Amino acid sequence: MSDVTRLGILLSGRGSNFLALAQACAAGEVPAEIALVLSNVAGAEGIDRARQMGLETAVIEHRGLKRAEHERRVLAAVDSAGCEWICLAGYMRLLSKAFIERYPERILNIHPSLLPSFPGLDVHKQVLDYGVRVSGCTVHLVDAGLDTGPVVEQRVVWVNSDDTPETLASRVLHEEHIAYKAALHRLLVEPWVVEGRRVCFR
Amino acid sequence: MSDVTRLGILLSGRGSNFLALAQACAAGEVPAEIALVLSNVAGAEGIDRARQMGLETAVIEHRGLKRAEHERRVLAAVDSAGCEWICLAGYMRLLSKAFIERYPERILNIHPSLLPSFPGLDVHKQVLDYGVRVSGCTVHLVDAGLDTGPVVEQRVVWVNSDDTPETLASRVLHEEHIAYKAALHRLLVEPWVVEGRRVCFR
Repeated sequence: MSDVTRLGILLSGRGSNFLALAQACAAGEVPAEIALVLSNVAGAEGIDRARQMGLETAVIEHRGLKRAEHERRVLAAVDSAGCEWICLAGYMRLLSKAFIERYPERILNIHPSLLPSFPGLDVHKQVLDYGVRVSGCTVHLVDAGLDTGPVVEQRVVWVNSDDTPETLASRVLHEEHIAYKAALHRLLVEPWVVEGRRVCFR
Repeated sequence: MSDVTRLGILLSGRGSNFLALAQACAAGEVPAEIALVLSNVAGAEGIDRARQMGLETAVIEHRGLKRAEHERRVLAAVDSAGCEWICLAGYMRLLSKAFIERYPERILNIHPSLLPSFPGLDVHKQVLDYGVRVSGCTVHLVDAGLDTGPVVEQRVVWVNSDDTPETLASRVLHEEHIAYKAALHRLLVEPWVVEGRRVCFR
């Protein structure tokens, strides 16, 4: 179907954002279909779920491979599946500049904080240790930095005084699922351009 | 009145947050009174307004003085006015560790972003250039860093696609006025403690 965008999903774990995107595609909320679900970790729960859903899957382990060689194989798999966009869903590998330039402004990631606050790992612990009153999530185009690309969508979650990293993560995750499909929908349906580092919808 | 906390306000410009606090004190929304409004800039609009309101004022220009000497004079003025808390309202000077230790956990500042994002100056331009979808304001206890102290209160403002630094500033400022008096009220009325860098209300 030529009016439906082919998505490649990269994940390393359970991939709950992959599931949210898969449901949104299946429900017609996003004009896309999942062409490939790829993991760098054998046994990733997200891959099992993808297989159960009858989706095309691939496992390309990074262990034992040089970074460039691993990326080359990932890129070959994504290319051969005909992916037009790539959505990262808990993919715990930084993509090289060379990789990103193969899909310019066509790679999305989601991060469980209001970037530029709290990039990197252990986000909810960072948030609680800092003591902010508000957190959230950010969908962004991927550049070669760590969680630095142009922002497409953000959603807000208030921090409770008795939150643990787990309780906060749970509420943020709920917003992530909404934000990711909303961002992808806008990018596929509306005209937009990146000016400087701002994503401008027309 | 012993049940009313004496506030010292430090400002360098128009001090719109000072006016919001003054109104909140006058309306009984915050159990405090303004004991002194002090500026490091002669002709600061906030000082004129304070005089019109019949408040005690002081101007201690920093120009021509060494930092330590300027601070010594500011501290002497604040002390002799019997200030128990200090609220910064657009005071464009960093306070030294020595100053802060004279009012431990008794100095408040407000910053027009969701810290730790976008500390420093030209905040709304930083926000728009980065392309975030959400901004806001932060009331925090002051430590010796630049906009790094423990967070007391934050409020959220959505960024519009056609915002300029001026339009965004205007909406954030509205939330600042609400946040500042709310934060001060909580700190004066509720029991709280700083754990690590978290402000924990009991």
